[in-house]
This record gives sequence, C-alpha cells and structure tokens, in this order.
Amino acid sequence: MPETPFYLQLRDRLVALIESGELRPAGRLPAERLLAERFATTRITLRQALSQLESEGRIHRRTRRGWFVSPPRVDYTPDRDQSFTQYVTAQGRRPFTQVLSLYHRPAPPTVAQALMIPPEHTVLKVCRRRYIDDRAVLLERIWLRDDLLPGLAEGDFTASLWQRLHDDYGIDPVRKSLRLYPTALTGTEAETLGVHSGSAGLCVTRTTYDRDGRALEYDEDHWLHDAICIRADVDMT
Amino acid sequence: MPETPFYLQLRDRLVALIESGELRPAGRLPAERLLAERFATTRITLRQALSQLESEGRIHRRTRRGWFVSPPRVDYTPDRDQSFTQYVTAQGRRPFTQVLSLYHRPAPPTVAQALMIPPEHTVLKVCRRRYIDDRAVLLERIWLRDDLLPGLAEGDFTASLWQRLHDDYGIDPVRKSLRLYPTALTGTEAETLGVHSGSAGLCVTRTTYDRDGRALEYDEDHWLHDAICIRADVDMT
Repeated sequence: MPETPFYLQLRDRLVALIESGELRPAGRLPAERLLAERFATTRITLRQALSQLESEGRIHRRTRRGWFVSPPRVDYTPDRDQSFTQYVTAQGRRPFTQVLSLYHRPAPPTVAQALMIPPEHTVLKVCRRRYIDDRAVLLERIWLRDDLLPGLAEGDFTASLWQRLHDDYGIDPVRKSLRLYPTALTGTEAETLGVHSGSAGLCVTRTTYDRDGRALEYDEDHWLHDAICIRADVDMT
Repeated sequence: MPETPFYLQLRDRLVALIESGELRPAGRLPAERLLAERFATTRITLRQALSQLESEGRIHRRTRRGWFVSPPRVDYTPDRDQSFTQYVTAQGRRPFTQVLSLYHRPAPPTVAQALMIPPEHTVLKVCRRRYIDDRAVLLERIWLRDDLLPGLAEGDFTASLWQRLHDDYGIDPVRKSLRLYPTALTGTEAETLGVHSGSAGLCVTRTTYDRDGRALEYDEDHWLHDAICIRADVDMT
C-alpha cells in the first residue's frame, strides 16, 4: 500500500476533532484560513480534505456561511407506511414543507408511462421543498391523476397527501413501486436545495397504486446525499 | 432563472450525441482534445461538462484509457432472494467474482454489534471484488460467524455463499436487515474499484439472520454509484 496522501491524513484528524466535539461550536467549522493555520497546511490541501469530508456526508457548505458539521442522516423505511412528516418527527427532528408550485400540465413521457395514461394527458404537478431542522434536504415533484381526484388542486399541499386522499376521497394506496439510485444534483434541483451543481444526491422515484391497480401518483424525489439512510427489513421465508 | 452555464449546455449536447449513438463506438468517447475542438471550447470547460456527466452516472473514466459511456444500471431488488450472480445474469449481463482476501480476525466494534457477539470475538472476514461485464463495480466485505459454520473457510468463495450454507449446513437465512446510503469511495474502496478517491458510491450494509434469530453474517458493500439501481415493490395492505 502506498503512503496515505496528506489530505487524507488531514481528513482523519478533522474527523477526530469533529467526533470529539472540539470542532463543533453550533455545528460550524472555523474559517478555512484558521483551519489551514492550525494544521500548518495550504488552503488548497485543506480544501481537498474538506471536499473529501463533504463527499462522505460528514460536513456541508452553506452559501456565504462556511462549513457545518452534518447532522445524522434521517432513516427512511420504505416499507413502513409513514409520511415524511411522521418519520422525521419520530426521529426527534423538525420537518417543514414548502409548496413551490402547483399547476396542471400535460404528462411528460416518463410520467405518462408510470401513470399508465396516454402521453400529454393532463395531470396535476406539485413541487415541494422539504426541510429537516431548517435545512432544505429534499425537492419533491409529484404528478397526480387529479382527473380521478376532483378538487384535489384546491387543498392544502403542505400536509400529508395520503391523509387527504383517505379523508376526502376514501382512497388508500395499496402498493407502491420504488426505484432508488445515487445521482448528481444539477440545474433546478441544485438551485432549489442551495448546493453546487454536481453535488451528490439520491434520486427516489415512486409510483403509488390504488386497490383497482390504478397508478394515482408518480413522485420524483431528489435528496441531498448526506441527509438520508434507507432501511429495510426483508423477510425471506 | 439565470441563463444555463455553457458547460451545462455542452453537457446537453454530449447527452444528445451519446443517446443518438454517434459518440459511442464501443462505448468509448473521442479524446478530450478532439471533443474540445469539435465543440469549439477549452479543455477546462469540456472537463466540467464531462465531470457533470460522470456525476450523473452517464460516463466514466478508466485509468489511462479515457472516457466511456456507462452501461445501464443493474437493478437490485433486495426483497427478492437472488444472489449477485443470479440477478446480474437475469439482466443479460456477465457477473464475475474475485476473492481478494480471506482470514480470521477479531470483529471490529460495528461488526460485533451487528453480529451480537462480544467485541474481539473471532470472525471470518472475506473480501470480494465483483464485476459486471468486466467492469469492477462492487467491493464486498463479509464478516461471518464461522464458529457456527465449521469448515466454511475451506470452501469456494467465488460461488454463492447462501447456496453453500443451504447445501453444506442446512441453514437458510430467514431475515435480512439492510441499510443503504450514498457515500464517497475513498482509500481501499476507491483503489480496489479503480476510481479516484472521492468518487460517488453507494454503501449497502446487510445483516442476515437464521431461523433462531442468530446473525450469521454482516456484509458491507461499496458500489460504484452508476452501476446500480435499487428497486422495491411495497405492499401496503
């Protein structure tokens, strides 16, 4: 094995200081200039070490505010029937949801295919930004068959959508189909979440079906990579 | 919305050429110099566009061989009881497994906790590198309770481990507990998979239990981020 490069040694020392609590008054790291002095290194090498820690999900940048220690990931257990608000709250964290846009539009091809409708069929598109402890962690785009759910667009989209479907329409989802893959956050996603284009993310897509096998909703979520951990318990008998 | 930066426009044009098939004789992109000439841009801007496509999982670098179009992601469905070899083959791809090391050692704290054994209890550690179509995509580290599985270390670890447990020990797993999160590949993981330290990856950990509730195995997988898509169908009734 070749010798560990200096920036990775520096990374290990920063991890030790983060874990000891020494480097985290209110979660914020000292300015890069001070850190470089403390470790007797250049800004360039220091930034390599910080980028490394960022990729690992241990620290993150906030625009014009510097580096912060990342809070623990929130666990998401897809096979539990819990809303974002429920599972974030259950982990002692503070959820918040902001509706960014809400309008009718023709379904793009991927969405039409997922919803099993003809291309260009009109659907309700809702974009939401979701926060955990005041940090924007998730951009959610939902396409809904509101031809089957009349009046849906008039309701409150900051609350749980499935609760509304249950209460107002007597509809309960019976099956959801999920895909999850690591990806980069670019363009709108990066901008909406306040990170640099190209930042690591996790994309989760979900199609939800009712008891008649109709796909009611297609959902595309972009998460900050360090905000979430997926958990699953699989029974193999 | 501000105007799209030039490197992202370039990214879109590269995607169009990749999708049309024009840029992929055998999956390899033309040399950076030729691409920069073709798009009348600098190497620096071209590299920004290429890095962007790399983050999205559309292209990847091979040491000293340049850029390649990434093959489609392989679907992994955790709730199906299929081995790596089975699900890769079922998708028309070619799996290959290489055993990198195999030895007894005291369980590190995380592993001891997962396996519900005292720290420093001796376990069998197996490291495997797994390939899809000749591309190394996965570094697997497995810690096994071979005190419960005598003679295990002597067998063939390129084949399915669970098939051996079934055939030789009459043991079938009844439950597995999974965690999945995006992370950076660094150090040994990056080296073993032949990517730069800090490349995007997906970490999957798995604990497998037998019918007596004993944790037989703890497994830590590091995947290249663009090689895999997790799928799950969740029954909510």
